[in-house]
Amino acid sequence: MGEQQPTQVGVDVDVVVVGAGPAGLAAATALADAGRTVAVLEARGRVGGRTWTDTVDGAMLELGGQWVSPHQTALLETIERLGLTTFPRYRAGESVYVVDGEAVRYEGDFPIDPDTVDELDRLIGDIDALSHEVDPDAPWDHPRARELDTVSFEAWLREQTDDAAAAHLAALFIGPAMLTKPSHAFSALQALLMAASADGFANLVDEDEILDRRVVGGMQLVSIRMAEALGDAVHLGAPVRRIVRDDDGVVVVADGVVARGRRVIVAVPPNLITRIDVQPPLPRRQHQLHQHLSLGLVIKVHAVYERPFWRDAGLSGTGFGPDELVHELYDNTNHDDPRGTLVGFVSDEHADEAFRWSDEERRERILASIARYLGPEALTPTVYYESDWASEEWTRGAYAASYDLGGLHRYGADQRQPVGPIHWACSDYAGHGYQHVDGAIRSGRQAADDVLASLR
Amino acid sequence: MGEQQPTQVGVDVDVVVVGAGPAGLAAATALADAGRTVAVLEARGRVGGRTWTDTVDGAMLELGGQWVSPHQTALLETIERLGLTTFPRYRAGESVYVVDGEAVRYEGDFPIDPDTVDELDRLIGDIDALSHEVDPDAPWDHPRARELDTVSFEAWLREQTDDAAAAHLAALFIGPAMLTKPSHAFSALQALLMAASADGFANLVDEDEILDRRVVGGMQLVSIRMAEALGDAVHLGAPVRRIVRDDDGVVVVADGVVARGRRVIVAVPPNLITRIDVQPPLPRRQHQLHQHLSLGLVIKVHAVYERPFWRDAGLSGTGFGPDELVHELYDNTNHDDPRGTLVGFVSDEHADEAFRWSDEERRERILASIARYLGPEALTPTVYYESDWASEEWTRGAYAASYDLGGLHRYGADQRQPVGPIHWACSDYAGHGYQHVDGAIRSGRQAADDVLASLR
Repeated sequence: MGEQQPTQVGVDVDVVVVGAGPAGLAAATALADAGRTVAVLEARGRVGGRTWTDTVDGAMLELGGQWVSPHQTALLETIERLGLTTFPRYRAGESVYVVDGEAVRYEGDFPIDPDTVDELDRLIGDIDALSHEVDPDAPWDHPRARELDTVSFEAWLREQTDDAAAAHLAALFIGPAMLTKPSHAFSALQALLMAASADGFANLVDEDEILDRRVVGGMQLVSIRMAEALGDAVHLGAPVRRIVRDDDGVVVVADGVVARGRRVIVAVPPNLITRIDVQPPLPRRQHQLHQHLSLGLVIKVHAVYERPFWRDAGLSGTGFGPDELVHELYDNTNHDDPRGTLVGFVSDEHADEAFRWSDEERRERILASIARYLGPEALTPTVYYESDWASEEWTRGAYAASYDLGGLHRYGADQRQPVGPIHWACSDYAGHGYQHVDGAIRSGRQAADDVLASLR
Repeated sequence: MGEQQPTQVGVDVDVVVVGAGPAGLAAATALADAGRTVAVLEARGRVGGRTWTDTVDGAMLELGGQWVSPHQTALLETIERLGLTTFPRYRAGESVYVVDGEAVRYEGDFPIDPDTVDELDRLIGDIDALSHEVDPDAPWDHPRARELDTVSFEAWLREQTDDAAAAHLAALFIGPAMLTKPSHAFSALQALLMAASADGFANLVDEDEILDRRVVGGMQLVSIRMAEALGDAVHLGAPVRRIVRDDDGVVVVADGVVARGRRVIVAVPPNLITRIDVQPPLPRRQHQLHQHLSLGLVIKVHAVYERPFWRDAGLSGTGFGPDELVHELYDNTNHDDPRGTLVGFVSDEHADEAFRWSDEERRERILASIARYLGPEALTPTVYYESDWASEEWTRGAYAASYDLGGLHRYGADQRQPVGPIHWACSDYAGHGYQHVDGAIRSGRQAADDVLASLR
């Protein structure tokens, strides 16, 4: 119990990659394409990281990252190269806005006080303009980086408007919807990075842009196909415990595998880097910066019905409720599936509260919230499931990592700095595509390029 | 290279303790006193954790925690029980205040604008009063906990006063001086916990209280004596890699030692808990909360001179400079030592900057800052040393851990919750004595009491 694995496979390659999520697999693919030998060591028994397409009670569910946006060109190009196809999210019909428990059907602007709509539009315009000033690959270089990073997004929004409702709604697009943290817990600069990473705040606000399409067969296929092409180079069930580094390379010790390489790309979320015993230890700045990043918390709720009943009522399945337990809701029906699937999200402090309830009560309350959007038929799905990434030891939160107040301008520039033969890649460190599969791929490719350059 | 140790000692005890800092050793001592068998597994080759009394170039230096305050009764009682003695910090004579590079000698109030002195006194009084409302063992129970935890201490101070200089000085007592973070990076509630843990803000502001005495022979002796009494139960050089838990107990796997026990007390700083592979994994709340705690950053500077030359000039060696590189300075001369020792601190963002300089430039600039307090004799110490805890893999910062904005009220109540047979202890989780050896001892004893109760 607890002792070393009885057998230990030894491999000797150019580059060892830790983690078989999209970042690690994109890095390994780029290295293999360049003629380098690689070994990918993955802790889990599957590839895909925070993308995971699984069948639960007979229903195919996207348990993790799933959407594709037009601006995510690295992902789109990868999908095409892997022979995969996409389909649009269903969005025909009216959306629903829930306030004080009452549903209001609408198209276009939120069905709220027109003055607040105008003020929200103004705010969105201002934040969008500011986000275009921010380089997602170096937000810390913005001339006002320190100022914007030392004020919470919540406090910053209060400075921008006297309309509390407009500020609350603007915060929703970044807080619960993206960083899955309360808007007091991250900075205005972190919010602008999120927006800049999607080519501007306007794209985050537009669900037709940010939640445009899905992969037929599931987003995990992106990782599965990349892993298939890498063949025996991918080792599953091989959590990396130790990296011993010197100027000539690394020895990477995982359960069951010892891999020697000239370089290693660590492609795990930053909150897990500390789990690896690095010898000699990482430098001071790395020790510090890992402590200032945290993954958010969100419950992704899946409810599958015999039919997508809401469509009959002329509803798209899209819903927003700034004070609802389920603050956003979408039609998540699979391609060519007669059943209807809804996906809803319970974010940050709402998720804290929901996890205090019993499983039954949580299910009941979450379905009641969905029913406030779409009516009582929503109360009786044939399949109900909650993704719980925070309980997974190889993730510990969702969707992704962001800095605490002041951390981004203070430590951000260090995060991708190689430490001798150790390079870093993950969606959490991406500029363009930050927090998304698109960013994971970009980050993986960038690390591969850097490694290739260093090996020349 | 990197493989398992060739020999593995097996021990079987009632309680395994991870970490031989004052928290772990206090826990083990209490358990042994109660007739339980213990094994203490320590990663380093020494005991003491963040207390470390070492001889550098012939000078005995307190590289880590060192001071004893009258309100730290658990520490005082431990010191006495271990047969150790204390001596007062030298403080006779005038202090020095440096502003715009100019030194002003003073006694009593800071030699600044009297209106600012009055406003600072008012602020200190208000914060002190509020800190007495906060239970250091449960700051999250304060009726305004959420409100106070979702505003940065910096922003909160701005709401309390229009006098920017007074706000800046009030922030210094908690930010650079205690949490070693910029005051935008922690909440007002976290600041109040810091104050409440020392029996009120007035105690933190009064250096004669908070920095009252030292241990003859060094603070590490507290840990060394406790470890000596525990004898063979303490295993050095035994970093814990894995804890396998079930309802009946734990197997704790360290390099060279496998310890079986009915309970384990993990007595390491919270940023290191993640380094241990726990099976089955820790629950969601533990996964999340560890990501919201971070150790601060401070350089403790030691300068030793042939004589305590400042005393000849009627100076105490105490100095404050709110905008100086070395923002606080003290006479740290050892008991019965003819040489004079100064200790100064370079905190948070100043430390970031200082670590970007070469070793020579950093030494030169730091000594220049000290010389602005005490004159040019300070430029030429016989021994100069900088404690660099952030580079130590078994610490990764200094002095201690605090929550990010919003983290304390959201996660604090979970931090000491046992997980099956796993209990937690560390100064970072202490209420009274938080961040200090006093809190470490209290936290260790509390964990021991909880374990004893659970074993009954």
